[in-house]
Amino acid sequence: MKNQNPISVATLKRLPMYLFYLRELPKDSSVYISATAISAALSLNEVQVRKDLAAVGKGGKPKIGYLTEELISDIEECIGCNEFNNAALVGAGNLGKALLCCEDFEQCGLNITVVFDKDKDNIGTVVNNRHILSADKLEEICNRIKINIGIITVPSHEAQEVCDKLVSCGAVAIWNFAPVKLNVPEKVMVLNEYIGSSLPLLLNHIADNT
Amino acid sequence: MKNQNPISVATLKRLPMYLFYLRELPKDSSVYISATAISAALSLNEVQVRKDLAAVGKGGKPKIGYLTEELISDIEECIGCNEFNNAALVGAGNLGKALLCCEDFEQCGLNITVVFDKDKDNIGTVVNNRHILSADKLEEICNRIKINIGIITVPSHEAQEVCDKLVSCGAVAIWNFAPVKLNVPEKVMVLNEYIGSSLPLLLNHIADNT
Repeated sequence: MKNQNPISVATLKRLPMYLFYLRELPKDSSVYISATAISAALSLNEVQVRKDLAAVGKGGKPKIGYLTEELISDIEECIGCNEFNNAALVGAGNLGKALLCCEDFEQCGLNITVVFDKDKDNIGTVVNNRHILSADKLEEICNRIKINIGIITVPSHEAQEVCDKLVSCGAVAIWNFAPVKLNVPEKVMVLNEYIGSSLPLLLNHIADNT
Repeated sequence: MKNQNPISVATLKRLPMYLFYLRELPKDSSVYISATAISAALSLNEVQVRKDLAAVGKGGKPKIGYLTEELISDIEECIGCNEFNNAALVGAGNLGKALLCCEDFEQCGLNITVVFDKDKDNIGTVVNNRHILSADKLEEICNRIKINIGIITVPSHEAQEVCDKLVSCGAVAIWNFAPVKLNVPEKVMVLNEYIGSSLPLLLNHIADNT
């Protein structure tokens, strides 16, 4: 998929929420769904919902809404769910295991095909149908199967080395859960997902409300 | 802490990164640190670093920089690290356990004091020094100890019920890891942290670069 009109980051980040909601609608629902219904169900602003959905598809019909199945497939195409994305996850601690158990990811087109860890007690165990492999074999295996995404859930001080290996094996996108900045070649995208980065927002709210 | 000048969300989200970097500087480092050094270490734009640090403290000295210890304490105060924040975490699956193991959170002033789960195999076990308690006791215990933050790592369909209980026990901030919108009273802040929401950004990059 090539985007003719780039979609805003904020819209892109809301797309999985629309997708999960639409996919989970009862089978006997109407074939149409309105922006009003979607915005009410997801507690989103209706104008925003209309803008988001206009960005991904052909748009709805006045007073009727969107053809649900068409909207689902437009969002799927927009996210890239229909592409084949092969990811390697490195670091099968609790966070790594939590990601392996997210069925949503696969529904969005992310297949975590291989998992590596350096902990001997972890290697050889199975999490959600994936065998955890020895980190020593990362390059050998990732070079063999074509991966394009690397997911990093190792401690900070190991993240850059793991990242370098994943990039050398063909990863063009890195999903980095370690709280460090990674250096990568220009063509590679790093998406930093340090969970603790939102904490100050919470703590600030409390400080201002107590 | 009351903010005289509200700090932008983007700046707030970068503060933990500065804090961890500054705290981990070798003990024999210079007592001063420059914005140039910080921006180089964290791969951030120097102008942005200067703006962020100006927002939290008294600022640095031209050509010398910031007193490291003073800067650390300014950031800590700004985040709210010095306040006492008592959190209850509900849902001790892999993601919940991963959060329990993040030592960073405590360093930022978030104390996950109690942990609840409804899985019998989980109840009574210990994760990073916390006993996992039965979810049946959530209200009894949270009402007794004063909690102000609720962390929700249960499946989506259970999230609203858990949220209602946490709010009724005094939580004024909810950190929600379930991919659903939660309804809360006006004074309560919900910070949604659905990890998969970033996925479309990664997949889009790949679609545009292959």
